[in-house]
Amino acid sequence: MKKDLGAKTILFPTPVLVVATYDGQGKANAMTAAWGGICCSDPPCVTVSVRKARHTYDSLMERKAYTVNIPGKGHAWEADYLGVASGKDEDKFAAAGLTAVKSGFVDAPYIEEFPLILECKVVHIADLGAHTQFVGEIMNVKADAAMMENDRLPLIEQIMPLIFAPSSGNYYTIGEEIGKAFSAGKEKKLT
Amino acid sequence: MKKDLGAKTILFPTPVLVVATYDGQGKANAMTAAWGGICCSDPPCVTVSVRKARHTYDSLMERKAYTVNIPGKGHAWEADYLGVASGKDEDKFAAAGLTAVKSGFVDAPYIEEFPLILECKVVHIADLGAHTQFVGEIMNVKADAAMMENDRLPLIEQIMPLIFAPSSGNYYTIGEEIGKAFSAGKEKKLT
Repeated sequence: MKKDLGAKTILFPTPVLVVATYDGQGKANAMTAAWGGICCSDPPCVTVSVRKARHTYDSLMERKAYTVNIPGKGHAWEADYLGVASGKDEDKFAAAGLTAVKSGFVDAPYIEEFPLILECKVVHIADLGAHTQFVGEIMNVKADAAMMENDRLPLIEQIMPLIFAPSSGNYYTIGEEIGKAFSAGKEKKLT
Repeated sequence: MKKDLGAKTILFPTPVLVVATYDGQGKANAMTAAWGGICCSDPPCVTVSVRKARHTYDSLMERKAYTVNIPGKGHAWEADYLGVASGKDEDKFAAAGLTAVKSGFVDAPYIEEFPLILECKVVHIADLGAHTQFVGEIMNVKADAAMMENDRLPLIEQIMPLIFAPSSGNYYTIGEEIGKAFSAGKEKKLT
């Protein structure tokens, strides 16, 4: 039996996206967002949503560039800290013990310690209410060489990304492999 | 050491979103999308991206409504099937053995067998290239009563949602709990 819960932002899974930018003074900053995801295959695009009061909002409007940095399960504290503190008040990179490296592809820094990075140029902005959505064209993806298969694609089992559950507010990582996409549905049922 | 991989749609995790609609003839249809996620807190909004060639694209343009249905790990075959088959050619609900129920909140059906449903009205459309992004205001969330805490919020540990890994193309579900959001970052490092 289903129960109606009203208008809420509950979706499983949501990602843990650390959005890194340079502000007007060229200071590197990063904030954690759970509202976002891939939104187009060609050109490859990702979207992140940011509140207007955020320091990152001003930086995104000014620089029109950001990186999405995916924390592994060993960086839950850093990811959470970057979500609760503000770059208006402090140097979040220093406080979190993280290293900002200038992207060679876009006008934004990335986080050296995180295993998977998407380097993006803002191509579409939509004011949706409390949040503004920034669609970024992915100009390059970089990943830790040690976490790839055949030096080609990063492996989720190596990255072990954080996953956010909006209802409980807990972080998880991935678990059991269930099946192969674009094949299970063509063949017999998974057991 | 980081390696550059070029412009690709790699992000971990991506969700498995089954988008259900009525077409022009009132036939219920559903397709699986991994490109999407929550994009605004107030009004609560979710986004899903769909290719123009999809039957669902025409239905979304006509009805301006959809539901997002989250499959649990026991529905990987159905989710994958709904991603590879087309509603132009067959009755996907019948073929997948799923039940379409008319939403009481929006002009779209939902999938009775799936544990978490978001009922949405299209409020913003953006043509991004290969995919068009449909932002939907979430008018109601419904969940299986047996999978909630205190009859109030669905639990990710009960839902056990599918998770898609774009690089390998595998499905996973959630695993280990890592910590609590909006608290870890304020206190000491997680161990």
